[in-house]
Amino acid sequence: MKVIKSIKEMQTYSESLRLLGKKIAFVPTMGYFHEGHLALMKEAKKIADCVVVSIYVNPTQFGPKEDLTKYPRDFDRDLKMAESVNADVIFFPPDIEMYPENYQTYVNVEKVTQNLCGISRPGHFRGVTTICLKLFNIVKPHFAIFGKKDFQQYTVIKQMVTDLNLDLQIIGQATVREADGLAMSSRNVYLKENERQSALTLVGGIKLAQKLYDAGERKAAAIAGEVEKLIKSFDYTNIDYIKICDTTNLDNVDEIKSQTVIALAVIVGSTRLIDNHVFGEELKA
Amino acid sequence: MKVIKSIKEMQTYSESLRLLGKKIAFVPTMGYFHEGHLALMKEAKKIADCVVVSIYVNPTQFGPKEDLTKYPRDFDRDLKMAESVNADVIFFPPDIEMYPENYQTYVNVEKVTQNLCGISRPGHFRGVTTICLKLFNIVKPHFAIFGKKDFQQYTVIKQMVTDLNLDLQIIGQATVREADGLAMSSRNVYLKENERQSALTLVGGIKLAQKLYDAGERKAAAIAGEVEKLIKSFDYTNIDYIKICDTTNLDNVDEIKSQTVIALAVIVGSTRLIDNHVFGEELKA
Repeated sequence: MKVIKSIKEMQTYSESLRLLGKKIAFVPTMGYFHEGHLALMKEAKKIADCVVVSIYVNPTQFGPKEDLTKYPRDFDRDLKMAESVNADVIFFPPDIEMYPENYQTYVNVEKVTQNLCGISRPGHFRGVTTICLKLFNIVKPHFAIFGKKDFQQYTVIKQMVTDLNLDLQIIGQATVREADGLAMSSRNVYLKENERQSALTLVGGIKLAQKLYDAGERKAAAIAGEVEKLIKSFDYTNIDYIKICDTTNLDNVDEIKSQTVIALAVIVGSTRLIDNHVFGEELKA
Repeated sequence: MKVIKSIKEMQTYSESLRLLGKKIAFVPTMGYFHEGHLALMKEAKKIADCVVVSIYVNPTQFGPKEDLTKYPRDFDRDLKMAESVNADVIFFPPDIEMYPENYQTYVNVEKVTQNLCGISRPGHFRGVTTICLKLFNIVKPHFAIFGKKDFQQYTVIKQMVTDLNLDLQIIGQATVREADGLAMSSRNVYLKENERQSALTLVGGIKLAQKLYDAGERKAAAIAGEVEKLIKSFDYTNIDYIKICDTTNLDNVDEIKSQTVIALAVIVGSTRLIDNHVFGEELKA
């Protein structure tokens, strides 16, 4: 496995692969890998000749009061884990290359960023789209693979790729969960032992929503209300949002008709967790 | 010469050239060609295997009170002119492909867009950077060639390419002028006969500025003041700005030290004209 730290070297390497007709699949990450990341890399390995994984904790997607400095990092552990699934290249650039002095260009996806996490994390998606576009231009992939745990991120990136005519296929991967159902996240490491049961209310909430849907309920407010009741019945939970939205434009819906997602953000203790579920899809939890 | 109207077809064609190791040079235009455009195409022809010229009057870079609908267009004439300098491909996409329903992604270069035309044309550069990025992703060039008559545009595009890590070289070409010195522009066609002498005050102004500089003047205010007097002494002139700026960050300077540009925008009758000159460079007028 190759480790590349320079932008120029990464571009040259990718360009040389492309000239040979090789296909590149890209997994952008902030590191501190868990099984969810490895699932993305395994999927990438199936569809391409070369799997490039970036590890970069992107400062522009963190708000001033968010966890940028304490975000968990373990580069050596990450390297071993990526190697175990046969990733080909780790791209690990320094901040000074990614955002040099006088940096001033940002990409805004203006509509699908407005709801859900866009409300509680202003500027977050501007940072996400900007870093992803930069990484796409550096890694030059044919495919990029994103986890659907971050459903809005996945939606925003697809919109950007369509709008900016990037010749690149975005692939969404199902959320990977712990044995108890908790959606895998690098931030789960923040959870204290006594907060775990409360953290499980997110997956509990989406299971309940699917159950109500299966029983014929189609009113968004009724489903969200029941999920809210469940989550509030546990200690340490502070609901940011429980929303039921169209999967393409992420507008709130009153009634569940076609493709609809329930998305939750809950602060458990001091850890902000998210989860989601598209009604009617399989829920492996 | 090939005419391509579909985004997908253009991407496929460019990708096939790249796979063969061919170099692509790109000249983005809004059509209605003059000798300035042809100079860009001739330069492109020198450095690449394939010259792609786009013709697209981009709606997002026009303000609500600007000349989008009356912007001059003559596709058949443009085709013949491009053919005369051996351009290889004309890319001529329809609006519905470039900005489909639900389009919502824009690029902002946040600093170098703030001065000069950025003040009088709010949103203009957001439209320019967005369309250029889209075209770069469609045409996949190795080189893109811009006229320096639009000095701020050239500066903004270079900044975007650097910031977003586009693996692409931006080349600036000297302004081409009419026999009387007027900088070539598709908008010159708007000028009435009795406005021509007034239009020449732009090039007259930059010649005067260079002359004062040659005589040892280094105070920006003194030079701008003299240029203002000259332009105001002609009928039909309405000065938008006369500014003396650093060529990289486009900040106003008080004293001319290193690389410095004088940039003008003057409304002559009802036609907004721009021109500029980097002090110490050759002025072919």
